[in-house]
Amino acid sequence: MARNTFGTLFKLTTFGESHGKALGGIIDGCPSGVEINIEAIQNELNRRKPGQSKIVTQRKEPDTVQFLSGIFEGKTTGTSIGFIIENTNQKSKDYSHIKDVYRPSHADYTYDQKYGNRDYRGGGRSSARETACRVVAGAVAKQFLKTIDFQAYVSAVGHIQLQENDVINIEEIEKNPVRCANAEKAIEMENYIKQIRKEGDTVGGVVCCVIKNVPVGLGEPVFDKLHAQLGKAMLSINAVKGFEFGSGFEGAKMKGSDHNDHFKKDGTTKSNNSGGIQGGISNGMDINFKVAFKPVATLMQKQETINNKGEKVEMIGKGRHDPCVVPRAVPIIEAMAALVIADFLLLNRTTKA
Amino acid sequence: MARNTFGTLFKLTTFGESHGKALGGIIDGCPSGVEINIEAIQNELNRRKPGQSKIVTQRKEPDTVQFLSGIFEGKTTGTSIGFIIENTNQKSKDYSHIKDVYRPSHADYTYDQKYGNRDYRGGGRSSARETACRVVAGAVAKQFLKTIDFQAYVSAVGHIQLQENDVINIEEIEKNPVRCANAEKAIEMENYIKQIRKEGDTVGGVVCCVIKNVPVGLGEPVFDKLHAQLGKAMLSINAVKGFEFGSGFEGAKMKGSDHNDHFKKDGTTKSNNSGGIQGGISNGMDINFKVAFKPVATLMQKQETINNKGEKVEMIGKGRHDPCVVPRAVPIIEAMAALVIADFLLLNRTTKA
Amino acid sequence: MARNTFGTLFKLTTFGESHGKALGGIIDGCPSGVEINIEAIQNELNRRKPGQSKIVTQRKEPDTVQFLSGIFEGKTTGTSIGFIIENTNQKSKDYSHIKDVYRPSHADYTYDQKYGNRDYRGGGRSSARETACRVVAGAVAKQFLKTIDFQAYVSAVGHIQLQENDVINIEEIEKNPVRCANAEKAIEMENYIKQIRKEGDTVGGVVCCVIKNVPVGLGEPVFDKLHAQLGKAMLSINAVKGFEFGSGFEGAKMKGSDHNDHFKKDGTTKSNNSGGIQGGISNGMDINFKVAFKPVATLMQKQETINNKGEKVEMIGKGRHDPCVVPRAVPIIEAMAALVIADFLLLNRTTKA
Amino acid sequence: MARNTFGTLFKLTTFGESHGKALGGIIDGCPSGVEINIEAIQNELNRRKPGQSKIVTQRKEPDTVQFLSGIFEGKTTGTSIGFIIENTNQKSKDYSHIKDVYRPSHADYTYDQKYGNRDYRGGGRSSARETACRVVAGAVAKQFLKTIDFQAYVSAVGHIQLQENDVINIEEIEKNPVRCANAEKAIEMENYIKQIRKEGDTVGGVVCCVIKNVPVGLGEPVFDKLHAQLGKAMLSINAVKGFEFGSGFEGAKMKGSDHNDHFKKDGTTKSNNSGGIQGGISNGMDINFKVAFKPVATLMQKQETINNKGEKVEMIGKGRHDPCVVPRAVPIIEAMAALVIADFLLLNRTTKA
Repeated sequence: MARNTFGTLFKLTTFGESHGKALGGIIDGCPSGVEINIEAIQNELNRRKPGQSKIVTQRKEPDTVQFLSGIFEGKTTGTSIGFIIENTNQKSKDYSHIKDVYRPSHADYTYDQKYGNRDYRGGGRSSARETACRVVAGAVAKQFLKTIDFQAYVSAVGHIQLQENDVINIEEIEKNPVRCANAEKAIEMENYIKQIRKEGDTVGGVVCCVIKNVPVGLGEPVFDKLHAQLGKAMLSINAVKGFEFGSGFEGAKMKGSDHNDHFKKDGTTKSNNSGGIQGGISNGMDINFKVAFKPVATLMQKQETINNKGEKVEMIGKGRHDPCVVPRAVPIIEAMAALVIADFLLLNRTTKA
Repeated sequence: MARNTFGTLFKLTTFGESHGKALGGIIDGCPSGVEINIEAIQNELNRRKPGQSKIVTQRKEPDTVQFLSGIFEGKTTGTSIGFIIENTNQKSKDYSHIKDVYRPSHADYTYDQKYGNRDYRGGGRSSARETACRVVAGAVAKQFLKTIDFQAYVSAVGHIQLQENDVINIEEIEKNPVRCANAEKAIEMENYIKQIRKEGDTVGGVVCCVIKNVPVGLGEPVFDKLHAQLGKAMLSINAVKGFEFGSGFEGAKMKGSDHNDHFKKDGTTKSNNSGGIQGGISNGMDINFKVAFKPVATLMQKQETINNKGEKVEMIGKGRHDPCVVPRAVPIIEAMAALVIADFLLLNRTTKA
Repeated sequence: MARNTFGTLFKLTTFGESHGKALGGIIDGCPSGVEINIEAIQNELNRRKPGQSKIVTQRKEPDTVQFLSGIFEGKTTGTSIGFIIENTNQKSKDYSHIKDVYRPSHADYTYDQKYGNRDYRGGGRSSARETACRVVAGAVAKQFLKTIDFQAYVSAVGHIQLQENDVINIEEIEKNPVRCANAEKAIEMENYIKQIRKEGDTVGGVVCCVIKNVPVGLGEPVFDKLHAQLGKAMLSINAVKGFEFGSGFEGAKMKGSDHNDHFKKDGTTKSNNSGGIQGGISNGMDINFKVAFKPVATLMQKQETINNKGEKVEMIGKGRHDPCVVPRAVPIIEAMAALVIADFLLLNRTTKA
Repeated sequence: MARNTFGTLFKLTTFGESHGKALGGIIDGCPSGVEINIEAIQNELNRRKPGQSKIVTQRKEPDTVQFLSGIFEGKTTGTSIGFIIENTNQKSKDYSHIKDVYRPSHADYTYDQKYGNRDYRGGGRSSARETACRVVAGAVAKQFLKTIDFQAYVSAVGHIQLQENDVINIEEIEKNPVRCANAEKAIEMENYIKQIRKEGDTVGGVVCCVIKNVPVGLGEPVFDKLHAQLGKAMLSINAVKGFEFGSGFEGAKMKGSDHNDHFKKDGTTKSNNSGGIQGGISNGMDINFKVAFKPVATLMQKQETINNKGEKVEMIGKGRHDPCVVPRAVPIIEAMAALVIADFLLLNRTTKA
C-alpha cells in the first residue's frame, strides 16, 4: 500500500489503524511563513469527531491533534509537519466477533485477500477514522489559503433532498446537527436519521460543496484537470459512490444551447454549468460539486454473511456506529478540497517563465 | 503543465496540439514480453476517429499510429514505447476567426489566463484530439490484460436513456453508430442526434462501462482507491461532468439493509451495489461505472461572446464538429479503464513479502 | 520542502527537528507479511546514536523508536508504518548564541535565505539527527530483504586510509569504535580522532559499503540506474561530498582492456570493476561503493563569521559534537542502501508480463 | 522500465533504441513564454553527435531534432513539448554477431536477464545514443535559464589530468576536439586518445562542470539535496563511475578548520569547498562538480566472452565506436545539470507562503 500520500507539492501522507496506538500524518510542502492557529485546526477536528450530536456515533474520542515539527514561533518553517492523534477510547473487544468474519459491503474480505495479515479491530486501516488526519491537513491548507472559502453542506439524506426552490443558507450549516444549509429540511433529515437508527438501519446522503474566491488558472488541463483531481479526492473518502460538478449528470440531458455559459465583459459567466472550471482550469467562478455517500454498511440488525473459511455465519453489528455519515463528512470534504486547491495553487506558480 | 502523465507504473505521457505536426506519447512501464498486435491497436483508434459515421464530425483524419520504439520482433521489450499520430487534415484557417475570441464553455479563456501564449487553432492542446493518444496506450494495456474485458456503451443521449427493463446486449454495441447496447434505443438516439445537428445544436449523454474478470485485490485502499483512480481517469476526459460507480447517486437514497451486498460462500456477492469494489479494492465481481458528458460547446448557431479585450463579439461555429460526443467516447473510456487496471495490476505485485 | 520522501514503492517520508518534540516517519509500501523484530531495529538505531563511544558526541539520547501502526501480531500488514523517536535530551539553550548567526559551512545561511522562518536550535531540520529516521526505515527494509547483506565500514579517517594490501575483515567492524574493517588501522584512526578532538578540530573520512547476494536485474536502466539511485541516497546524507562505485575515479584512468570484467560461464565475472552493476542493472556480483564525508563544520575553536544583518561576529562551537562523523555514518549508509534495494526489488516484480 | 523520466516539475521522458526508427522525448513542465531558438538547440546536439572530430566515433548521423508540439510562434506554450530524432545511419548488420553474445562490461547480460526480449542492435536502449534526447531537453532548459551559465570541460583523459596549477580557460573548451579547458593539455590528451585508438583500446576520463549565477535557495534539504540530484543526474549518464562536488574525496582528508568556508559580509564565502551548496541548498557561489567516466567497453581487440547459452566465444568489436567518451560527454553533462537546475528553480517558487 505505497499510496498513503495525497498531493504532489502540498502533500499529505498518513498512517494509523482505528485501534492502534495513534493515527497521524506528515504534511510536506506547506510553504514557510503560514501563521498556524492550532485551535482552529482542533475545531475542524471537532466537527468530524464522534459523539458530537445525537445523530452520530456515540463513541467519545477526544481526537486531540499534537504537532511534532514544522511549526516554529507560530509559523510554518517550510519543513515537513508531523502530527499524531492518539487513540484513547478503543474498545477492541467489541471486534473480536469479526476477527474471522467478512462483514457485508465492508473491506474485510478484500483486505484479507490482498494483504493476508490485517488488523481487523474496528476496520483497522479501512476505518473512516483515517479521515481525521485528512481534516488536520486540510485545516492547515485552509490557513495557507486564507482568502478562499470552502463551504460544504448536506443536501440529501436518503430520499429527503434539497430542492431547487429550497433556500440555501450558509449560516444554517453549523446550527443543525445534520449540517444542512436549510433549517426546515435539516429537521426533516434529523428526524429521518433518528428513525433509521431506531430500525437498526442506516441511510446514505449527498454533500454539496462550494469553493469561493478561487483564482483563475488552477488545474492542469490534460490528466490532472482540476475537477478530475477534486473527483479523485472525494472518491477516496470512505463510502463515496459518485461525484459530479457544475451541471453534472443533469448536464448530460441538456442541449449545448442551454448548457453553454456565456461570458460577461469581465470574463465571468452569466450561468455556471461549468461549475467554475473550463478545460480543467478554474475560471474564477464558484466551484461547486456534489458527492454521493452510500449507507453505512454496519447495521444493528442480524445479517447473514461468511467467514474466512467460506462458512455461512450470522452476525449483528456491535460497537458504536453512525446511522448516516454525511453530517460528519462535511468537514472531510472541505479538507480534501482545500488540499487539492493548495496543491494546484503551488503548482500554478510554475506555469509562466 | 507538468502533468501530461497518467499512471505510476504503467504510465502514459502525451503531447500534441490538434493543428501541430503530430500528436504522440510514451508508454512507460509496459512489461516486456507482451505480444503486440498493431492492427488491433489501429482498430481501437478507428473506433474513435472522426468521420466514421454520419452522426459524428465529418473531418477525415486517418489517425494512423506509428510506433517508434519498445517493440522488437512483435513483442514489447520493457523499454519505453514511443508513438506518433501525424496531423494530416488540419484546416487551420477554419480557426483564424477565434484567434482572439473566447468561445463560451471552451477552454480558450482559461488557457489564455493561465499560459499567456496558446495555440488557438482547433483548441490546440485542449482539443479532444489529444484522446487519440489515450486510445493507443489503452489498446496496448488491453493487450497486456488479455483476460480482462472492457465493455463500454452509450446508455443515454440527452433525455433518451436506457431504462432498467431495457435489455443490455453487448453484441449490439458496435453494430450501431451510437454504440448503444440496445438496438431499439440506438435508433431513437441516432435520430435524436440527427435532429439536434439539424438545429445546429449539440447534446450530452452518458456512457456505462463494465469491466469483467478483474482479479481480486486491485486498488490501494486509502487515497488511491480503485474507484477514485477510475473516477479521476474518466473526469480527465474532455467534456465529462460526473462519475458514479456501483449504486452511485441512487445509492445515496438507499438504506443499508437494502444496499449491502451479501456474500455467497465463494466470496462473490448476491447483489453488486459495490460495483465490484469494496474499500477501494476490487472484489472479483464486475466493475461497473457511469460517466456523464456535457453537450459539445461548439454550436453551429450564432452566439454572443467576448474577445481578449473584453469586447462583446458575435460568433458562429465553423469547422466540423460532433453534435454529441458519446459515440466516440466509448473507446476512450475503455482505454482509460485499461490504463487504470494495468497500473494497479502491476502495483499489486508488490503487495506481499 | 515537499521532498521529505525517499523511494517510489518502498517509501520513507520523515519529519522532525533536532530540538522539536519528536522526529518520526512513515514507511509506506513495505509488503505485508514481513516479520518485524523491533529489537533488531533498535540495535541499528543504537549503532547510530550519540554517546556510544568516546570518539563520538557525548550527548546522551536514548533514541527509542515507537511504532504506531502497520504492524499486527508481529508482522507487517501492508499498511503504512508510522513511527516516532522522542527528543528527550535537547539543551536548547546551547543554541541561543546562534539564533542570528550563520555558522560557517552549515546550512544556517541557506535555510534562512530559502525559508525565512527556521528553527535554529541544534540546526533544526538540517541536523543529522534526521538520519535516525532513515536508520529505522532501513532496518525495516533489511528485515524485508533477509537474504541480502549490507556491510559498511570506515576505510579512511582524514589521511589514514585502508590500503590495497590491508586485510578487510568484516568481523572487526563492530569491535572497534571507528567501525573500521581492519583492527590495526582502527587503532590508528581512533587515536587520530582523539587528537583532532583535543585540538577542537574535526576531520573527514570515507565509508565503503558492500552489498552481497543482490539478485540479478535490479535497477532501471535509463534515469534510475541502480548506482544513480544509490548515489543519490548517499549524497543525501549530511556531510557527504562524493560517491563512486566499482572502479570509481580510478576507473577513469584505466584502459578498456584492463577495465573490462570478463564473464565466466555462469554469468559471473572474473573482476568486478563494474561494482556489481552493468548498464544500471545489478549483475549478481557484489555491489560496492565508497562515500566521502567532509569534516564536521562545528569546531570547538574560535571562528569569525557573520550574522543575519551581515555583521562580522566571532563564535565558538558550544554543545556536544562529533569530531568525525564516519563511525556513526556506517549504519546510515547501510540503511539508505537497504531502502534503495527494497525499492528496486519491488519495482523489478513489474518487469515481465 | 517505468523510469524513463527525469525531473518532477521540469520533466523529461525519453524513448528510443539506437537502431529503431527514431529516438525522442517529451519535455513536460517547461513554463510558457520561453523564447525558443531551435538553431541553438541543434548546436548543442552537434556538440554531442558522432563524427564531429577525428577522436570520436566516425559514424555519420545528422541527429536532427524535430519539434512536434508545445512551441507556438517561437515561444513555449506551457504544454508538453514532443520531439523526435530520426535514426538514419543504422548499420544493423554490424550487430548480428552479438545477437546471442554478452559483450564484457556492457549491459547485454543484465538486459537479457531482466527483460528476456531485447533489441540487441547497437545496444538498443542501453546505447548512449539515448543521451541525444537529454541534450535536446537540456538545451531547452538552458533557454529557460538564460542568466545561468553551464560550463563543462574535460579535466582528465586516462592518466593525463589538469593539475592545480594548470590554467583553466573557458574560451579554449570548444577550440579543441577534446573539450579540455587548457590548450596544452588538450594536445596531450588528443594525442593520447589517438594512440589508444591505434591500439584498438579505449580510455576513461573526467569531466568538470561549473554552474555560474545560480540563485541562492535551490535544492530541497533532506532527500533531494541539490548535489544529490545533480549526482543522480550525472550517475545516470552511460559509463559514469563517480561524482564529487566541491572538495569531494579530497575533502574527506581535510580538517574542519581548513575546510570550512568563511563568510564575507555579503553572504558569499572566501573559499568554496562547499561547491556552492550548503545543507543541500545553493548558496549563490559557483556550483562545481566532477564526473568520472570509465573506458568504453567495446574494444577493437579480440576478447573472450560468453553467449546466452553460457558457452565461451571469441569476439572482436565491429562498428564505429569512441575510443574515449569524455569529449562528447561535455554537452550531456551540461544538459543534465540544466535539467536539475530548472526543476529546482520551479520548485523553489513554491517555498514561501
